[in-house]
Amino acid sequence: MKFTEKDKSFMSIALKLAEKAKGTTFPNPAVGAVIVKDGTIVGKGATASGGVPHAEKIALDSAGNKAFNATMYVTLEPCDHFGKSPPCTNAIIAAGIKTVIVAVPDRNPLVSGRGIRRMKRNGIRVRAGLMQEQAYSLNEDFFWAVTMKTPWITLKLALTLDGRIADAHGDSQWITSPASRSFVHDVRRRHAAIAVGGATLRKDDPKLTVRHVNGPDPVRIVFSSNHRLPAASYFIRNADRARSIIVVAAGTNPNIGKCKNGVEVWHTGSRDPEKSLLSFLRMAYAEGITSILVEGGQKMASMFLEHRYVNRLYLFFGNKILGGGREAFSFKHVRALKKAIVLDRFETKVLNGDIMVTGIPVWKRR
Amino acid sequence: MKFTEKDKSFMSIALKLAEKAKGTTFPNPAVGAVIVKDGTIVGKGATASGGVPHAEKIALDSAGNKAFNATMYVTLEPCDHFGKSPPCTNAIIAAGIKTVIVAVPDRNPLVSGRGIRRMKRNGIRVRAGLMQEQAYSLNEDFFWAVTMKTPWITLKLALTLDGRIADAHGDSQWITSPASRSFVHDVRRRHAAIAVGGATLRKDDPKLTVRHVNGPDPVRIVFSSNHRLPAASYFIRNADRARSIIVVAAGTNPNIGKCKNGVEVWHTGSRDPEKSLLSFLRMAYAEGITSILVEGGQKMASMFLEHRYVNRLYLFFGNKILGGGREAFSFKHVRALKKAIVLDRFETKVLNGDIMVTGIPVWKRR
Repeated sequence: MKFTEKDKSFMSIALKLAEKAKGTTFPNPAVGAVIVKDGTIVGKGATASGGVPHAEKIALDSAGNKAFNATMYVTLEPCDHFGKSPPCTNAIIAAGIKTVIVAVPDRNPLVSGRGIRRMKRNGIRVRAGLMQEQAYSLNEDFFWAVTMKTPWITLKLALTLDGRIADAHGDSQWITSPASRSFVHDVRRRHAAIAVGGATLRKDDPKLTVRHVNGPDPVRIVFSSNHRLPAASYFIRNADRARSIIVVAAGTNPNIGKCKNGVEVWHTGSRDPEKSLLSFLRMAYAEGITSILVEGGQKMASMFLEHRYVNRLYLFFGNKILGGGREAFSFKHVRALKKAIVLDRFETKVLNGDIMVTGIPVWKRR
Repeated sequence: MKFTEKDKSFMSIALKLAEKAKGTTFPNPAVGAVIVKDGTIVGKGATASGGVPHAEKIALDSAGNKAFNATMYVTLEPCDHFGKSPPCTNAIIAAGIKTVIVAVPDRNPLVSGRGIRRMKRNGIRVRAGLMQEQAYSLNEDFFWAVTMKTPWITLKLALTLDGRIADAHGDSQWITSPASRSFVHDVRRRHAAIAVGGATLRKDDPKLTVRHVNGPDPVRIVFSSNHRLPAASYFIRNADRARSIIVVAAGTNPNIGKCKNGVEVWHTGSRDPEKSLLSFLRMAYAEGITSILVEGGQKMASMFLEHRYVNRLYLFFGNKILGGGREAFSFKHVRALKKAIVLDRFETKVLNGDIMVTGIPVWKRR
């Protein structure tokens, strides 16, 4: 099945629409749709903030009756079930769309293939697979979360060329360049939540907000040994700015409490680090948090990576060598070279003197 | 002063000739020369093995009387002094060359500017600076050594993404991919000598030869606490393959002895690590060793880098994470983040899944 250069250029526009919406549509995926008639775009749309309406619906509304006999380019297979909105397939069929070109089939068990079959049965010509890699990457977190019922975890660290995330005095500001830090804000805005350890909160007093780029503030999560965080911290002082959660490995059952200032305290129901982590992930998914960006330090990073809970790793190497200081990772069980963690879909990018490395850790089993 | 595209293409050919000769011309620089008449190459040459004859002489000989009124492209300013060979300026003037285009002026105090002035006084049109960055890089070791009277030191390490050069069992084979290792052999062949620590020799029994690429074997240097190395090691068994040196921080004066098998034992005259290192560098330069590639382990790497004796650093990051193991560097005095070592002329290259990083450490003083 061949696609033309024109097909690609329309799908690129749909992908850009989706890309722009990314981070605002949780727990739904970010989707883009473009409607083309006689070689001209007559309608377009992206998933709205909060996830509804869907991109297809917005594009159809903007096209009006020009949608009749037109072609729709959509980055994800249209849904065929009633959720927060009626099935997009209904609207597409009703509008008289002639051809639908889909980038990637949905992995959501409620959709996968059903949307495509339904449209075909109604006489629509459907073709799938155009630019599917980009479309898949854009919503890799959604596909994972909806299949595994656990949030997609991205781990991000800034480290020196000799693998240190802080010097011997704990100073880590700044290892990387402003270009890398802007890039990180773009990574942040793609996630439903940002998580740090209590030690990082106490030391760096991070804002855990999205800056430098446009986007809503993600949910803020702090892993702490207890629920008392410094009252003067940005996190506590700005508890109303975004949903704020303190996660404590304690209690006998998973439990969510709320403080007067609105901060939630999640007791995971276990003091065992691995059990507590797993319990937290289940709680987070149940609470609609489908993706979490974990931003160091060593303890958090090591815990998530060693226990195989990292779906994507971002390493930002600053052009610096310390000869000592705090290592990026310190596993309880250090891996032998032959059993090292390897990154799949390895990508690198030079950012104003820094090197960004990203990839998907390969886990043999989970 | 503008150069044409044709000028660039001829100088590129001269640079390629020099590049090919690199590693065979010690202690002389690797130079390439191309002679062009009426837009056609009529002669070319590169510095011969061992450093003489020079590139200019070989090119002139190959051009014969076609050199009259021709243009010479040469990657380094021609010499104007009697060394192992008579001045190239004499030969250029005698051949009736009309124009000389030089990539980079020589930094050798015996040459710098003299060659160019001499040719100009003899009616030759001389222009300098074409592709000078490439030409400079090609002989950066030579320019350094001849000015500072100490060898150019390149430090190379292969490390995991989390900054480890071996796992907890000391296993380091292999952190990087075959593509990186081939690249390292190309780096090796550009150096007059390769050095490792005694611990690495005992553990890995390295050959310290140039493989995968063509080139002569460099001088082999082992830093050891004493002159006894395992008789079964490749280094000792193949002592006749290349000049082989064991460096020991001992004695009261710098002293060179020779074993029956031909291996040299250098006593640096000091037990103090930093003094011993400086003494070794002076001895090496006096012995005609103008560049040394230092290949790990942690102790060697840290000693050379902490004491500011590294001119160029190569880091090869393999796509692996261990979560522990042996760190690349362990300084006696760990640097604060604000005083971190930074690399100038920072370059990166992706090598079949590995990342190569290279640059020139910036030293505020030495």
